[in-house]
Amino acid sequence: MSFVDRLHERMARLNTRLCVGLDPRPEWHPAGVDLWTHCSSVLEACAEYACAVKPQVAFFEAQGLAGMETLHRVLQLAKALEIPAIIDAKRGDIGSTAEAYANAWLRGENGGSALTVAPYMGRDTIQPFLDAAKEEGGALFCLVKTSNPGAGDLQDLPTPEGTVAQWVAGWTRAFNGEGEGYGPVGAVVGATRPSELALFRSLMPRSVLLLPGVGAQGGKPADLAPAFHEGGRGAVVAASRAVEYASRGQDYAEAAARSARDLRDAINAAIGC
Amino acid sequence: MSFVDRLHERMARLNTRLCVGLDPRPEWHPAGVDLWTHCSSVLEACAEYACAVKPQVAFFEAQGLAGMETLHRVLQLAKALEIPAIIDAKRGDIGSTAEAYANAWLRGENGGSALTVAPYMGRDTIQPFLDAAKEEGGALFCLVKTSNPGAGDLQDLPTPEGTVAQWVAGWTRAFNGEGEGYGPVGAVVGATRPSELALFRSLMPRSVLLLPGVGAQGGKPADLAPAFHEGGRGAVVAASRAVEYASRGQDYAEAAARSARDLRDAINAAIGC
Repeated sequence: MSFVDRLHERMARLNTRLCVGLDPRPEWHPAGVDLWTHCSSVLEACAEYACAVKPQVAFFEAQGLAGMETLHRVLQLAKALEIPAIIDAKRGDIGSTAEAYANAWLRGENGGSALTVAPYMGRDTIQPFLDAAKEEGGALFCLVKTSNPGAGDLQDLPTPEGTVAQWVAGWTRAFNGEGEGYGPVGAVVGATRPSELALFRSLMPRSVLLLPGVGAQGGKPADLAPAFHEGGRGAVVAASRAVEYASRGQDYAEAAARSARDLRDAINAAIGC
Repeated sequence: MSFVDRLHERMARLNTRLCVGLDPRPEWHPAGVDLWTHCSSVLEACAEYACAVKPQVAFFEAQGLAGMETLHRVLQLAKALEIPAIIDAKRGDIGSTAEAYANAWLRGENGGSALTVAPYMGRDTIQPFLDAAKEEGGALFCLVKTSNPGAGDLQDLPTPEGTVAQWVAGWTRAFNGEGEGYGPVGAVVGATRPSELALFRSLMPRSVLLLPGVGAQGGKPADLAPAFHEGGRGAVVAASRAVEYASRGQDYAEAAARSARDLRDAINAAIGC
């Protein structure tokens, strides 16, 4: 089964559209709780509420080799728990380099995972990622309209093809081609942009939308219904700090699970699932 | 001394504008030559011809934890050899994540290095990198117009502010502010785009230009003069495969040194240095 099929199977079976983000900050951990203990405890505690897990590579890279080793273990744990993993690395580079990144994140032990990719360098730089995703049953999430305050700096520039973000949405649609169901190229659209969700939903009918920015960044579950297709399909809501650091005390895992359950319920309420 | 000052000091002292790229592909190494041996031998052999070294993080990531450990050692070696390092990672993410990447690549052991950054997500996502670069005496190279065939897909889109690439060039200029000499925000402009070099040079007078794409990608030293300021200042030419894999035999290090020397000379001839 491909990433998008495994994702939708889990969304339906557990009735959840919540993707739990892992952005570990050791300085927020209670005394004696290391990176691996925190990440693995949060993931296990939230598993039943999570349709996917999204480790943010930056926070592991920032901890050096030990951090990258922990990321590797987190991805293995997600596999053991059968939780689809979205590796949030926002990679993008020329063809031969993109192949190297694809080997790192979409093949081998990471085969079947999804990866976030950046579009600035052009379609030919996304193709090697797409080839790897197709061959390994994985997926991509291409940055289209991001959740940060300055996203519009570049993404909202008007062009003869619509805004830059709309132009990139068109690539995503073309990469998936025509047909039924979802293709392997999803799109990142910020949950902080509720007024734009319906537009991007319609521009990319075969893309799974990844909606980051709920919680700490200000996005609200109640506003996200336009991103979903009927039956609560076709989108996942990513929350990181709001779940992982719901508590900075020793009760962090239970607090994360409660926050994940509440977010799952709030999203389901918004979409009538 | 800041990165751009150390870079220019070395450019002047050794009379070279060549940045040696390290994109290691173990499958191209002669029998018995591991990643570290190849990278370190090439870097040491080319040191006298190189004003900078540019490890491409993707090729190290593709080798897993052992690859990242090797990258760490390569960056330590560059420091020992006093060769300014441009870490080619093309990172870009929301503010808190950008801070984590900046911690990984521009602070601590990597303080004083330069990092390539991607602009799609907007100026607020570059600011944390800039803060780290300023505080640590490092630098950034922002993607402006890349060297790959499909670069124009997005970068050449016309907008009311010029093309997307010209708009990003304007950010780079603004980040550096007014004044004498070079600021900490350089720009990537493909050596495969000779007709555009003069334009981007004039749009970013205080940015060091990083010109990738010489050799395997088709860029020619003879075409690159418009990227330089008087005295051969303000730009560096990156060559990776053409140097590192000038030979795939046991003579790889000597072949790399010959190729680096020849490229240095060809660049100097083009700019009259």
